[in-house]
Amino acid sequence: MLLKWTEGASAAQKQAVLAALAGLPGKIPEIRAYVFGPDAAISDGNHDLAIVADFDDAAAYQAYAKHPDHVAMITQHVRPILASRAAVQYEIP
Amino acid sequence: MLLKWTEGASAAQKQAVLAALAGLPGKIPEIRAYVFGPDAAISDGNHDLAIVADFDDAAAYQAYAKHPDHVAMITQHVRPILASRAAVQYEIP
Repeated sequence: MLLKWTEGASAAQKQAVLAALAGLPGKIPEIRAYVFGPDAAISDGNHDLAIVADFDDAAAYQAYAKHPDHVAMITQHVRPILASRAAVQYEIP
Repeated sequence: MLLKWTEGASAAQKQAVLAALAGLPGKIPEIRAYVFGPDAAISDGNHDLAIVADFDDAAAYQAYAKHPDHVAMITQHVRPILASRAAVQYEIP
C-alpha cells in the first residue's frame, strides 16, 4: 500500500499515522510481518508512505482489512490527510 | 513500486514483465531481495503489479535504478503497457 498525503498534512498528523501503524501488529494477530516507512525523498513524484504487510492467505488479509483497529486507524489518522492511495495484494512465491 | 497496466495490455505482455523481473536479481548484484507479483484481484481499484526490492542503502538503490538491465526491462517491457505507477523508497528499521 502506498499513500500520498494532502498538501496541508502536518508533520504531527503524519507522525500519528506512523504511531498508529506501529500499534497494529500487537492488536491484529493475522499480521505476520508489517514494515512501513515514509518516503526517503530520493526520487521525484513518489508517494509519501509505504506499508508492506504479510499474511498467511487472502482470508487473513481480509480479517486485517476489516479489523476494527485497522479501520479506526484509517478513519482517525489516514483519511483526514489522504490525497491518494495505490494498493496491490499479491502472493509471495 | 506499484504499476497499473493499460487497458490494451495483453497477457503475453504482462507475462513478459514478470519474466524480465525474474532475471534481474541474477544481473544486478545490489539487489538483496526481490519480491513481485500480479494483483490477486481481491480488492477493487488496485494497481496490477507490486515490486518490493531490498537494498543495503540509497546508493545501492540508485545503482539498481540506473543499471542497464533494469533500464532495458523498463523500456522494452514496462513502458509499452504502463498506465500509471506509484513508488516509495523507505528505510527498513
